[in-house]
Amino acid sequence: MDRFIVTYRIRADDAADAAGRAEAIALEDTVEIPRDVVPKGYVEDTILGKVLDVVEGGDGVWIARIGYHIDAVGRELPQLLNVVLGNASILRGVKAINLTPNADLRQRFSGARFGAAGLRGLIGRETGGFVCPVIKPQGSSSETLARLCYLTAVAGADIIKEDHGLANQDAAPFRERVKLCAAAVLQANSERAQTGETSRALYFANIGGHGDHVRDLAYYAKDAGADGVLLIPGLFGFDAMNRLAQDPEFGLPIMAHPSHLGPYVLSPDNGYGHGMLFGQLMRLAGADISVFPNYGGRFGFSREECQEIVEHCRETDGLGPIILPSPGGGMSIDRLGDMVDNYGHDCVYLLGGSLLRYGDDIGEAIRDMRAALSD
Amino acid sequence: MDRFIVTYRIRADDAADAAGRAEAIALEDTVEIPRDVVPKGYVEDTILGKVLDVVEGGDGVWIARIGYHIDAVGRELPQLLNVVLGNASILRGVKAINLTPNADLRQRFSGARFGAAGLRGLIGRETGGFVCPVIKPQGSSSETLARLCYLTAVAGADIIKEDHGLANQDAAPFRERVKLCAAAVLQANSERAQTGETSRALYFANIGGHGDHVRDLAYYAKDAGADGVLLIPGLFGFDAMNRLAQDPEFGLPIMAHPSHLGPYVLSPDNGYGHGMLFGQLMRLAGADISVFPNYGGRFGFSREECQEIVEHCRETDGLGPIILPSPGGGMSIDRLGDMVDNYGHDCVYLLGGSLLRYGDDIGEAIRDMRAALSD
Repeated sequence: MDRFIVTYRIRADDAADAAGRAEAIALEDTVEIPRDVVPKGYVEDTILGKVLDVVEGGDGVWIARIGYHIDAVGRELPQLLNVVLGNASILRGVKAINLTPNADLRQRFSGARFGAAGLRGLIGRETGGFVCPVIKPQGSSSETLARLCYLTAVAGADIIKEDHGLANQDAAPFRERVKLCAAAVLQANSERAQTGETSRALYFANIGGHGDHVRDLAYYAKDAGADGVLLIPGLFGFDAMNRLAQDPEFGLPIMAHPSHLGPYVLSPDNGYGHGMLFGQLMRLAGADISVFPNYGGRFGFSREECQEIVEHCRETDGLGPIILPSPGGGMSIDRLGDMVDNYGHDCVYLLGGSLLRYGDDIGEAIRDMRAALSD
Repeated sequence: MDRFIVTYRIRADDAADAAGRAEAIALEDTVEIPRDVVPKGYVEDTILGKVLDVVEGGDGVWIARIGYHIDAVGRELPQLLNVVLGNASILRGVKAINLTPNADLRQRFSGARFGAAGLRGLIGRETGGFVCPVIKPQGSSSETLARLCYLTAVAGADIIKEDHGLANQDAAPFRERVKLCAAAVLQANSERAQTGETSRALYFANIGGHGDHVRDLAYYAKDAGADGVLLIPGLFGFDAMNRLAQDPEFGLPIMAHPSHLGPYVLSPDNGYGHGMLFGQLMRLAGADISVFPNYGGRFGFSREECQEIVEHCRETDGLGPIILPSPGGGMSIDRLGDMVDNYGHDCVYLLGGSLLRYGDDIGEAIRDMRAALSD
């Protein structure tokens, strides 16, 4: 295949309209000029998107596949997204629902560094789902947050995730907070090791600060002892995540947070399909763990949409290694059984605000989670 | 006012549901924990969002105003967007439609460096709308693109904008292209000056490359002689734009392109209002010119939505100086008269693909645009 393929769901009046709209997308996302002025030769033959087929999908919707050449992209992820859904994101009734990589795309965007297997190795837990408390709320001091890190880590958590709203506010500035939290998890891991426990807790620091400081902040976190970072591609850009993932010197796993990305999936007629955004694009951009709001919580994803995300995180012919899905958003321990039935063990189970109800007994909640997620 | 205010349009079943949903947003975008575990004192009194009022708007919609304290933000723009619409972007039926800054917000985010008046000064044109050809398509060589720059600049264009799809592809790598294009516009300006013309064309280079190279690429463009940069906040992040705008050493105007941002405005029930995104947030993030798709072109914005964008670009109590709106997207010269009636002279009129029909006579098209946009 000399082209990678994007599949679009197009709302149209009839087959001719659908075909015309597919051709319009192919123009819009590459040359962005009227068809009659596309220069002959290289621009028309290689750069211009190529409509492969347009098939009726029922209910006024058509499914179009468009092939794009890597030459229209270059080597940087922002321009890849321009080609996949840049200006077409502004067209009414156009939703990108699938990405089929080719060898060119795989070569330039190699995906996650660790993936599901790599993370299981880092944590040292051979079986069972991953217990992931979320440390919050913002406004707490660094010491308070670090204590929550310690209490959950020593009780057996697998991943300690900072809340995505812990940025760089005065109450707990990034550098101070990360230093204390990393030290707290290190201490807890050392105590766990003394009991003969072979698994360890990984501390994921939330990158909070300016976009052009992401690399510096991530390296600071690493040097302070963090085991991974949480990043919000909807605010910092997907390329910010990919640059860390593709940096062999950095070499820590990355958890992607869905904040600010809602509008890309909530409309049936615009943006991305759930699986494409939270599965395929997160993998392509280098996330090892993709956080998304679970069905039945505060957010409006359906069970089927969540399932689609998980399938794309795990599809074996996807881009790079398979990664860990991570459902969260208003979950509670009594729902974990149902969630494990649905998502299985290669999954990071988030539990946030409701853990705070346990106060100093938060370790009990972690042990309850562990029990619910074990074989 | 000790809080800045975000106004949300909320779809709800009844007044009680609307009130509950407003409280949920105030929690979601700040502490992200259940209300009963919000710590007393600073977190509850200052960090937690405060619902100011919820008013029925008809048709199952309520209008809620929520006040946020700057302490929940800190000093960086990514976290500001987390507070304004981070996780709430994933809630069904929640759309942010207005931002009312307070002194704290104005102090930390000062807006555009040049704005409408500054750009008019840089161009040196006292009256009339601004003529802005778009140089394309990608796949063309740097020489071909530079020749288009020269031909349009010498014919009297005010701003030469690169297509947002000219990134860093092999056909015209960023550094080579920008160097040639800047030199071409410089040459044209020198010829214009010899005829006694007092205005000059500004060349805006499209930042194409990796997100963590934005600053380097922008400085390269400046050193090569570019007069401004085009940036895509939907791909590089709004903070990338703000960092350039707030860098006094950089000191060039910035044009924001709407690529990849469509899903934020196209649904009535999610994302941002048109005026909030392409007016208020672009100003806040430091754009001097905000590009958006005009009504009646290829894209689906209505005349009213475009008017709302323009009003927010120009509202005098907005954040920072007023900026220039820039409608585009499939425009042609014969529509300019109608557009001027609608948008007036403090506006950048984009014309892209259709200009290519003129071939080597593209200068004629520029002169026709000028005639249509003069007093």
